[in-house]
Amino acid sequence: MRRSFLVALVAAMPLLSIAQQAPVLTRVVVQVSEADPARWNLVLNNVANLQDELGADKVTIEIVAYGPGIGMLKFDAATNSRVSDALKSGVAVRACENTMRNQKLARADMHPGISYVPAGVVQIIRRQQEGWSYLRP
Amino acid sequence: MRRSFLVALVAAMPLLSIAQQAPVLTRVVVQVSEADPARWNLVLNNVANLQDELGADKVTIEIVAYGPGIGMLKFDAATNSRVSDALKSGVAVRACENTMRNQKLARADMHPGISYVPAGVVQIIRRQQEGWSYLRP
Amino acid sequence: MRRSFLVALVAAMPLLSIAQQAPVLTRVVVQVSEADPARWNLVLNNVANLQDELGADKVTIEIVAYGPGIGMLKFDAATNSRVSDALKSGVAVRACENTMRNQKLARADMHPGISYVPAGVVQIIRRQQEGWSYLRP
Repeated sequence: MRRSFLVALVAAMPLLSIAQQAPVLTRVVVQVSEADPARWNLVLNNVANLQDELGADKVTIEIVAYGPGIGMLKFDAATNSRVSDALKSGVAVRACENTMRNQKLARADMHPGISYVPAGVVQIIRRQQEGWSYLRP
Repeated sequence: MRRSFLVALVAAMPLLSIAQQAPVLTRVVVQVSEADPARWNLVLNNVANLQDELGADKVTIEIVAYGPGIGMLKFDAATNSRVSDALKSGVAVRACENTMRNQKLARADMHPGISYVPAGVVQIIRRQQEGWSYLRP
Repeated sequence: MRRSFLVALVAAMPLLSIAQQAPVLTRVVVQVSEADPARWNLVLNNVANLQDELGADKVTIEIVAYGPGIGMLKFDAATNSRVSDALKSGVAVRACENTMRNQKLARADMHPGISYVPAGVVQIIRRQQEGWSYLRP
């Protein structure tokens, strides 16, 4: 009897772990794909609101900028100091290297605190597959 | 034997209930985060289409307006009568109180039939965590 | 003992199959709901990037154009040859018949290689319910 219970429990394990993950932590991938500084500020407001309402330690946030949105992460962007604040508060901020190649941007052109992904769009889809929520402000 | 089966069944229960929920009812959270009345009309068209195609009793729809999208829910918005129609058809329409505070909007400035959430963006993420589909028109 | 194990396994089966589906294949529904050719090109860039990074045989992509986005799929759209390329590479490209009716568009007005859905917005929600990821460029 004990063995069959254990076997069944092991079979159900990956599912249980998925079901139990959700309430523990909120994970959100936030897309930036527009060239509009007003939208960049909206993104940063949204991130701050998520942290304020849920508690910064209870929500994992990743901003992914690609295509026309890459401008938000240039070193001279109007949103620069707010991006620094987001980084300090624990938000991951990632730029799409595909886009940078297309727009001839080097890492020296970008905000020094950010990180990089080969393809922003792949990152956004992967996060959804891993169970993250998706926000496109 | 019966006990181990019951234990395993109980272990699998929350998962089964999640799996079985999906086909019963379609649940959609619709985001409004732009200041553009044409986009507000698109949102309201989308909602009407979902109801027409799926049956208004088979789809649960929640519109969440925040940031520049809050204008859709002001009492004098061009979309006012269409918002009334959506409410009458059973759609929940919610304004973000964070945004209202930032834009110095009181409930008296808003469409009388709507409801409120502390933070629109948190509502949108929560709904996704609860298994709702996400639409950003 | 064996019987109780089998019963538990059968109970867990639909869940296991859901959990195991994700890593096998990436499925993405891509929304086009803007009248902006620059956005259409972004959509087509995103689709190409997904294929390049993941392998065209490992990702199933469906583009759904509706509302103001329907213009991307007209026979005389600026993006016409790129839509042909996407179709050749195995991407499904679908136009919303609701939108076509509203805009008095016939199939003869559209890109000859595409397919049709009664309501674009319903298609996007259904795909999410089936476990597809959602991309709104």
